Amino acid sequence: MNVTSLPISVSWETTAVKILDQRLLPQREVYLNCENIEQVFEAIKTLSVRGAPAIGIAAAYGLVVGLDASEANGSTEDLIKTLNERRDYLASARPTAVNLVWALDRMMSVANRDSGSSVETLVQRLIKEAEDIHAEDKASCRAIGEAGYDIVKQYPRLLTHCNAGSLAVSELGTALAPMYVAHNRGVDIHVFVDETRPLLQGARLTAFELGRAGIKRTLISDNMAAHVMSQGKVDAVIVGADRVVANGDAANKIGTLNVAILSQYFNVPFYIACPWSTIDLSTQRGEEIVIEERGSEELTEVGGQPTAEADTPVFNPAFDVTPHALITGYISDRGLLTAKDLINQ
Amino acid sequence: MNVTSLPISVSWETTAVKILDQRLLPQREVYLNCENIEQVFEAIKTLSVRGAPAIGIAAAYGLVVGLDASEANGSTEDLIKTLNERRDYLASARPTAVNLVWALDRMMSVANRDSGSSVETLVQRLIKEAEDIHAEDKASCRAIGEAGYDIVKQYPRLLTHCNAGSLAVSELGTALAPMYVAHNRGVDIHVFVDETRPLLQGARLTAFELGRAGIKRTLISDNMAAHVMSQGKVDAVIVGADRVVANGDAANKIGTLNVAILSQYFNVPFYIACPWSTIDLSTQRGEEIVIEERGSEELTEVGGQPTAEADTPVFNPAFDVTPHALITGYISDRGLLTAKDLINQ
Repeated sequence: MNVTSLPISVSWETTAVKILDQRLLPQREVYLNCENIEQVFEAIKTLSVRGAPAIGIAAAYGLVVGLDASEANGSTEDLIKTLNERRDYLASARPTAVNLVWALDRMMSVANRDSGSSVETLVQRLIKEAEDIHAEDKASCRAIGEAGYDIVKQYPRLLTHCNAGSLAVSELGTALAPMYVAHNRGVDIHVFVDETRPLLQGARLTAFELGRAGIKRTLISDNMAAHVMSQGKVDAVIVGADRVVANGDAANKIGTLNVAILSQYFNVPFYIACPWSTIDLSTQRGEEIVIEERGSEELTEVGGQPTAEADTPVFNPAFDVTPHALITGYISDRGLLTAKDLINQ
Repeated sequence: MNVTSLPISVSWETTAVKILDQRLLPQREVYLNCENIEQVFEAIKTLSVRGAPAIGIAAAYGLVVGLDASEANGSTEDLIKTLNERRDYLASARPTAVNLVWALDRMMSVANRDSGSSVETLVQRLIKEAEDIHAEDKASCRAIGEAGYDIVKQYPRLLTHCNAGSLAVSELGTALAPMYVAHNRGVDIHVFVDETRPLLQGARLTAFELGRAGIKRTLISDNMAAHVMSQGKVDAVIVGADRVVANGDAANKIGTLNVAILSQYFNVPFYIACPWSTIDLSTQRGEEIVIEERGSEELTEVGGQPTAEADTPVFNPAFDVTPHALITGYISDRGLLTAKDLINQ
């Protein structure tokens, strides 16, 4: 399918990792040409690249970009030592990002496995592994798009929250993948986009990338979703997830629980879209998920402009947990699943 | 009771109308000393003063401020002619503000009734009428505070949306009045304040005035209310209303319906606080209320900072309608009422 109109968060350009600087979106579409590991580190640390899978892909390429293999003096052992240092350095860019460490460790396991190869062969093998991680992510997004296609065809007037699209992942994203697939096949869809306070990922990123793809969308503030649903303007909701646990409870961007409760009240189907890798069967129930709390300035300022007194007490949870009873289904790269399907895995 | 710590939106200072410039809140607390009608007109037009009752009070004082009675050459007829011109001028400052016209017409009915008086007597009589309007509004807010006191005592951990406080009305406000009364009587209360996108009245005004009164409050973005309720942190919700119709359906700031649905899901009592003057028995059902839609820039900018592409399609309803089935009760200046009580009036 034609995906050339979508913004590309991360790409490999032979001697550089090209990273779309999401901090400048939607006002400016600037690509960082990261020719060395320090530039990739900065891009991850400063949130130029965000979204767990996109960070993992950037880190995998970052492990090998600008690698001066000649420094290894032909010794694979020296190269692996260098790679281990580079791995630790990149992993420190965002210590809590699970996909970052996951991608780096997958790269290192290849390095350790192929330690008998020549330096040149190993570098090529690592570039190939990073490309594989990237390709697998794209394939996973496409599979989610296929799994959700019938839902979007049946419910073409949608609502989404936060950004689980091309910018967070690669190519099609997760929650937006079924929308891109359906749009590409000629289904006339419309998407209400929650602006997603406090960090406005919906306004800045989702509205931007849907517009770029030519999909009709309407931006609303998060508190307008009930009114929009009360007017019968939403057929279904599709959102992403940061973690789905064994009983089907789903942690996602703050405000997702809000939308799920409204969906139940208005009898609107509510779907979570996510790759199988997001499903954590080792955790039984949503109550066990620890919710990250972020700084108060995200509520007392917008873009540096004060919106409340700086010393106002603030509660700023980054995520909430939606109980499985409110979730109609899980659109995954293993097909459309129910909470019961998860438990039976 | 001691209300000296509350910000005063409008006051009469013998030769001037003193208006708190709410556009600068909460960063700066600046009072406009309006010594002539043009300054009052500007304060209303530019939203330095907002909230229907506060606008009405400012206009009533504005009708007589800086009035040069000597221009009337001792003729009450000339004075009334001048007053009629001033009335039309002030009424044009915000053509859709119901309370503005209501207050001005009440002032003019006094002028017309007392047209046999001397110029000096009539001017004094009009100042007294403006003070009466102001005093009645304060009394109405105090009555709402009394009517809601037991609710706050029973449910001291509250959540509110938008600003229905001192700044919108006079003295105690509506939704906040029961909180001020209870706090003043030593009830230990805590209030979660929805920031209230898009215009952030919760962050800018409610968090400010509750803080000024020494009431514990925590600012959240609107989409965090579900998470906060899921943690059992909210005993009850109290919000204001722009209009309550005969069957009890209530129009209020966009996002109120959101909170009402969440309250039902979490079994949290949900109250509307409003003066009897807000209850419109001539309209039968909420579906009949026309919802004002506002400009797209309120969603694509915050404080002049772009938050989305300027040409992003936006839906920006200013209000929503909460069905009476979701409303536990109406805290009014005629006591605590149910939807059935309204119909039986």
